[in-house]
Amino acid sequence: MAKMVLLPVLLSFLLLPFASLALTQDFCVADLTCSDTPAGYPCKASVTSGDFAYHGLAAAGNTSNLIKAAVTPAFVGQFPGVNGLGISAARLDIAVGGVVPIHTHPAGSELLFVTQGTIAAGFISSGANTVYTKTLYAGDIMVFPQGLLHYQYNAGTGPAVALVAFSSPNPGLQITDFALFANNLPSAVVEKVTFLDDAQVKKLKSVLGGSG
Amino acid sequence: MAKMVLLPVLLSFLLLPFASLALTQDFCVADLTCSDTPAGYPCKASVTSGDFAYHGLAAAGNTSNLIKAAVTPAFVGQFPGVNGLGISAARLDIAVGGVVPIHTHPAGSELLFVTQGTIAAGFISSGANTVYTKTLYAGDIMVFPQGLLHYQYNAGTGPAVALVAFSSPNPGLQITDFALFANNLPSAVVEKVTFLDDAQVKKLKSVLGGSG
Amino acid sequence: MAKMVLLPVLLSFLLLPFASLALTQDFCVADLTCSDTPAGYPCKASVTSGDFAYHGLAAAGNTSNLIKAAVTPAFVGQFPGVNGLGISAARLDIAVGGVVPIHTHPAGSELLFVTQGTIAAGFISSGANTVYTKTLYAGDIMVFPQGLLHYQYNAGTGPAVALVAFSSPNPGLQITDFALFANNLPSAVVEKVTFLDDAQVKKLKSVLGGSG
Amino acid sequence: MAKMVLLPVLLSFLLLPFASLALTQDFCVADLTCSDTPAGYPCKASVTSGDFAYHGLAAAGNTSNLIKAAVTPAFVGQFPGVNGLGISAARLDIAVGGVVPIHTHPAGSELLFVTQGTIAAGFISSGANTVYTKTLYAGDIMVFPQGLLHYQYNAGTGPAVALVAFSSPNPGLQITDFALFANNLPSAVVEKVTFLDDAQVKKLKSVLGGSG
Amino acid sequence: MAKMVLLPVLLSFLLLPFASLALTQDFCVADLTCSDTPAGYPCKASVTSGDFAYHGLAAAGNTSNLIKAAVTPAFVGQFPGVNGLGISAARLDIAVGGVVPIHTHPAGSELLFVTQGTIAAGFISSGANTVYTKTLYAGDIMVFPQGLLHYQYNAGTGPAVALVAFSSPNPGLQITDFALFANNLPSAVVEKVTFLDDAQVKKLKSVLGGSG
Amino acid sequence: MAKMVLLPVLLSFLLLPFASLALTQDFCVADLTCSDTPAGYPCKASVTSGDFAYHGLAAAGNTSNLIKAAVTPAFVGQFPGVNGLGISAARLDIAVGGVVPIHTHPAGSELLFVTQGTIAAGFISSGANTVYTKTLYAGDIMVFPQGLLHYQYNAGTGPAVALVAFSSPNPGLQITDFALFANNLPSAVVEKVTFLDDAQVKKLKSVLGGSG
Repeated sequence: MAKMVLLPVLLSFLLLPFASLALTQDFCVADLTCSDTPAGYPCKASVTSGDFAYHGLAAAGNTSNLIKAAVTPAFVGQFPGVNGLGISAARLDIAVGGVVPIHTHPAGSELLFVTQGTIAAGFISSGANTVYTKTLYAGDIMVFPQGLLHYQYNAGTGPAVALVAFSSPNPGLQITDFALFANNLPSAVVEKVTFLDDAQVKKLKSVLGGSG
Repeated sequence: MAKMVLLPVLLSFLLLPFASLALTQDFCVADLTCSDTPAGYPCKASVTSGDFAYHGLAAAGNTSNLIKAAVTPAFVGQFPGVNGLGISAARLDIAVGGVVPIHTHPAGSELLFVTQGTIAAGFISSGANTVYTKTLYAGDIMVFPQGLLHYQYNAGTGPAVALVAFSSPNPGLQITDFALFANNLPSAVVEKVTFLDDAQVKKLKSVLGGSG
Repeated sequence: MAKMVLLPVLLSFLLLPFASLALTQDFCVADLTCSDTPAGYPCKASVTSGDFAYHGLAAAGNTSNLIKAAVTPAFVGQFPGVNGLGISAARLDIAVGGVVPIHTHPAGSELLFVTQGTIAAGFISSGANTVYTKTLYAGDIMVFPQGLLHYQYNAGTGPAVALVAFSSPNPGLQITDFALFANNLPSAVVEKVTFLDDAQVKKLKSVLGGSG
Repeated sequence: MAKMVLLPVLLSFLLLPFASLALTQDFCVADLTCSDTPAGYPCKASVTSGDFAYHGLAAAGNTSNLIKAAVTPAFVGQFPGVNGLGISAARLDIAVGGVVPIHTHPAGSELLFVTQGTIAAGFISSGANTVYTKTLYAGDIMVFPQGLLHYQYNAGTGPAVALVAFSSPNPGLQITDFALFANNLPSAVVEKVTFLDDAQVKKLKSVLGGSG
Repeated sequence: MAKMVLLPVLLSFLLLPFASLALTQDFCVADLTCSDTPAGYPCKASVTSGDFAYHGLAAAGNTSNLIKAAVTPAFVGQFPGVNGLGISAARLDIAVGGVVPIHTHPAGSELLFVTQGTIAAGFISSGANTVYTKTLYAGDIMVFPQGLLHYQYNAGTGPAVALVAFSSPNPGLQITDFALFANNLPSAVVEKVTFLDDAQVKKLKSVLGGSG
Repeated sequence: MAKMVLLPVLLSFLLLPFASLALTQDFCVADLTCSDTPAGYPCKASVTSGDFAYHGLAAAGNTSNLIKAAVTPAFVGQFPGVNGLGISAARLDIAVGGVVPIHTHPAGSELLFVTQGTIAAGFISSGANTVYTKTLYAGDIMVFPQGLLHYQYNAGTGPAVALVAFSSPNPGLQITDFALFANNLPSAVVEKVTFLDDAQVKKLKSVLGGSG
């Protein structure tokens, strides 16, 4: 088959679909300078390989804090390449004795993969308040259904690390304690809607930086 | 125009599409005797007008309880006609001093319409733990985004009633207190993941019927 | 536990996730000054509690018109807080003898809750043209599947009021009579595609302000 | 590269993923003997090439009827291979003078491709009742947004044929005249909700086989 | 019924809903000058009938090329009216001996309708690599599930033409040969990930205009 | 506050919602003995903690094969707990010199997290056949948009391991070489739709166990 002959013919064929399909949306890397929409951010005009990779989960988070744990997100805000792709990630570092306090992800299910150490994890169903718990070792995975309260804590004798994936580029993270105590929701209202004692509410408001 | 002539011609036309479109899915009333699927229940074979109406929200719920409130759901489990239609409802009755404790709906947004009395309501954002609150009077509506913690309580001097609609036939209802205290999640774990004091946890576990 | 010690440690922990999760999308209040997208409007930058509540359904609509009825919408155009949340609302006021003419919502299912009076309602299936009708009293709910023709009229001796919720922030409302007679679609075309008589079409075109 | 050596190694590699991925869902040919679900029919266990092709649109529909037109569907009920794939088709045959009466597809948008003849088509928006019309010739396409009233009629001097595709395996077809006149909805109700005259309603009920 | 009396009353009724529903989204014709979003392009402000029809598939594509075939798309980039409507189209012209090389549509299922000639088509399942093939004649349709490799070639003695519909306004088109050989992916990498011989890779890279 | 008094009151309150919400769907663990549906498998009736965890990714896959790599899936077929949750996982083990051949996931985007070693990865866009490549080290993540051709190979001097998450419980895996050469698709057809030489096709068919 003569290459010389093929080349010009094929190239003209090539050029046509390239032009006409220029608007095809294989992906939509977020342009974070634009307003978000209910389906995600508008697409960035110019894209490179770097937009699809992220280095921010490589280093351990700083666990020198009260909870002895760190959640490092790779959501659309940090990793714009996941915009519109229905997936994102985070890294959990949990020192000995550390805990990721009870929380929900309002907009996504979570899949946790333990890469180091031992993690005790659990979630609670909404219908019957049933508790589903597992002790997870390196290599184990566990899934936490969307919107349900769940927690993770270090159940071993060394640091624990996990990679977490979400079924949304922007799953959200609502830590129950922060929602209740780390803002200006009046103590009287918190007590009314939680049945917690006044002293307990005021103590945690103070610790977590809330007012009122 | 001669009816006599038209009739046989048209009817034969009529009968054909009726037969061929017999499987069209305008709706899918839940057959609750079947297993649920991720998209909802399989469709009931034989359907009547009664499947699309529900009387269960007409009567006030019984508010003679500790929270002085009642939530009467018309989710797919009570009202199978909403299966697959992306909507459901509930009725809130809140006596004077009553409260619907802080909770989430893991699978749907909520739109509340006050039909009687005065209701103080609020929700908390996940990102910044910002509190959004309103005092609502008869005729007011408020929307609570999917999965976010929110509450309602009677802020008036008479009984309050609201109709609530959800963006899902099965939105779920996770009351934070019940999730934490009304099951066998060990007190030590609750304390670890909430920072609550041991006495507080044990007190609420006891009140709400939890063990451990 | 010493509050003095905890505070600085925890706050530094707090500040980090707040910064990194600043783009989390818990909600997306519509910025109606922007172009709509297939998934809804772009999100407003600055949001307050007022964006999530709406007072426009509190007052009765004006029923001093031919149909003796009023539909007051709280769609995304009126109530931008529902943007992206899969839900919206409307209020129906139907005076004695009044009617909401046969219509569809192209983009959402409807759930009707009667708050006052008596309403006769019905919808028609597409496959077999089966009619599903109910007479509804205060407290009753009825669901109308997406896109199907349905109607409501006052079947009692006093005014009727209903709250309506939709499974979309922008469900649309296509009143069949207005679609056929309240525009410039030529009478000959209307007659051809409806089998209605010329006199009937011209009469309704004239009444409803159509031309041609 | 020695084929003899490669073969056994690779085959053992091959067999593993085949076994473990046996449940992958590339498609879900409808098992019409099962109950439908909101997302479509359960999948048929055993599938052949024949399940993905359909011959039923090859022959012209019978246009010897009052409307001088025929709609031949290839929805999931006729062509189970489209189940779950978000697409289906139909064939329109419109004889000279024929018409597809005004109708909606409650569950899908429509894309029409004229293969023969001349078709006048139009749809009406819900917001402003604006009419969008086009005269289409062989090779032209037109799109009709989901749930909006639209019609097609033969605007030429010979038979017209079109292929129609839908954005749903089961888009539904609600012909307005059949919904209003081809069932037992009482004439008084039809008149109330359409403003049509009693004589007009009774005439069309009689022609289309309705009662009441 | 006195038209004179009705007119002013009804018109005032008419004007109100028109105003309040002005933002209803029946459709969202793409404004291609804006950035795309994960759900499609922002909506064009001013729309006419012409936006919903497209003439570009009426003429045969130029098949005077190596593959003796032409794919003429009517995706959102060419036909902005389909934006947000879940559907688009294309025209296939395949001369005698012509072929549409093996390819996928990453974002949509395909429904093919043969309007002229004879086409041999096939797709391959992912789980078991099963081949599903059919020889299709004028009037036949075949469906190709989303994302699976498939091909079409002329199996007759005259030109073949097909209309193709997709379950997405922007389904994409990834021709395997172009993805492998028509870019700067180094030959060594291509060989590593395909098991193809070096000579084969270099030959096709040369023919298809690739480098490296 | 007297616990004795509270208990009976609250418990009766508790029992009511538990009963009425018994059908709430927080999750839908797959019952793999049932037929799949387009939205996933029907839900298993009885569920335990074990359904939400999976141990199958803990051990390295066997890389003693031609490609010196192993893909160990935790899709719904292996890990029924992910059914309906929009997420799943897999483990990649790639020995020195090993490769995961070019492939697509027809039904999901992929997020790769390198836990050990060095992986060269790339994907190719459909519109312009642009190649996006990265060399990834332990801790790096990369995202591969749904349906696009991509590959991974070991680019280091020791074994490489990665955890992969998908935006679907059942993303599928179509390895291009297996689709082309590991079945009974006739060589003449393969050559026609790929432009590969006859010798090349026959060689790979032989190696990969294909016939024809």
